Amino acid sequence: MKKSLGARTLLCPTPVMLVGTYDHDRKPNLMTAAWGGICCSQPPCIAVSLRKATYSYACIVERKAFTVGIASENQVKIADYMGLFSGRDVNKFVAMELSVVKSDLVDAPYALEIPLVLECRLLHTLEIGMHTQFVGEIVDVKTDAAVLSQDGLPDILKLRPIVYDTAHRAYYGVGPSLGEAFSVGKK
Amino acid sequence: MKKSLGARTLLCPTPVMLVGTYDHDRKPNLMTAAWGGICCSQPPCIAVSLRKATYSYACIVERKAFTVGIASENQVKIADYMGLFSGRDVNKFVAMELSVVKSDLVDAPYALEIPLVLECRLLHTLEIGMHTQFVGEIVDVKTDAAVLSQDGLPDILKLRPIVYDTAHRAYYGVGPSLGEAFSVGKK
Repeated sequence: MKKSLGARTLLCPTPVMLVGTYDHDRKPNLMTAAWGGICCSQPPCIAVSLRKATYSYACIVERKAFTVGIASENQVKIADYMGLFSGRDVNKFVAMELSVVKSDLVDAPYALEIPLVLECRLLHTLEIGMHTQFVGEIVDVKTDAAVLSQDGLPDILKLRPIVYDTAHRAYYGVGPSLGEAFSVGKK
Repeated sequence: MKKSLGARTLLCPTPVMLVGTYDHDRKPNLMTAAWGGICCSQPPCIAVSLRKATYSYACIVERKAFTVGIASENQVKIADYMGLFSGRDVNKFVAMELSVVKSDLVDAPYALEIPLVLECRLLHTLEIGMHTQFVGEIVDVKTDAAVLSQDGLPDILKLRPIVYDTAHRAYYGVGPSLGEAFSVGKK
């Protein structure tokens, strides 16, 4: 017999996404978001949900573009900072001493220091309720060579992405390997 | 200078979601999905993307309901199995010796042995490309008492959810605490 906890957003794990946007005056911004995920393989797409009240919301609507950066665990303070303050009040790139890079494919910035970045062009906007979901086509992925494995793809143990625990609003690292997908279930 | 990897679905981490459905004849099924995430706080909603070719697709379209189960790391073989085989060919509950529980709020089943389950009512269907995104309103969360902390919410270190590494199609556990959200970035 299971216990009922009521209607709650208790998915686990959720990602820590640094959503990069330009505002009307081209001020760059990063905002931390945990509501979202990959939503299509072809075209490759990612969904990110934001409240209309956020500074980033109008930026995405106007520019029809955003980036999604994945910070390493040693950047957890940067990631958390981007969720604590609004781009209305502060230039978060300046405050955190991050270098602004303009995506060469979409009208949005990212931070040079963040090791993995998805460059996204807005494809769909879905009004759900408190949050609006933006579906972006991932037109390119930019990474630091230092987080790649020999096959040229990101190595999760070099990237060390942050895991967000929604229930207790806390950050975790990635733990030990549990095996290969499409393999361990065959046994 | 970052390296370009092309247009790829390289978000990290992604969840391991066991999507529970009934088919036309009420046969229960579980299917593993990594494409999705929370997409709204109020109403609480989760998005899950499936290909039309999957057995689960027609089930969600017909029943307008699904569950999302989160397995613990010691259930990684079960989670992987649900992504290896189709409900067309096998009753996966029987094959994995799982007990079927009908959600009391939506027309979809879940496995008693899976410690965290979101019961979802279909709200939106978005055709994106290879995948169709189903947005479900989370009408209840069911959990085992064993994975709860004293405040009555899931404890990530008791639940031990599985992290999926898209780049190398591998499973990982949750690692060490990196600090409290809305806190570590203040320093």
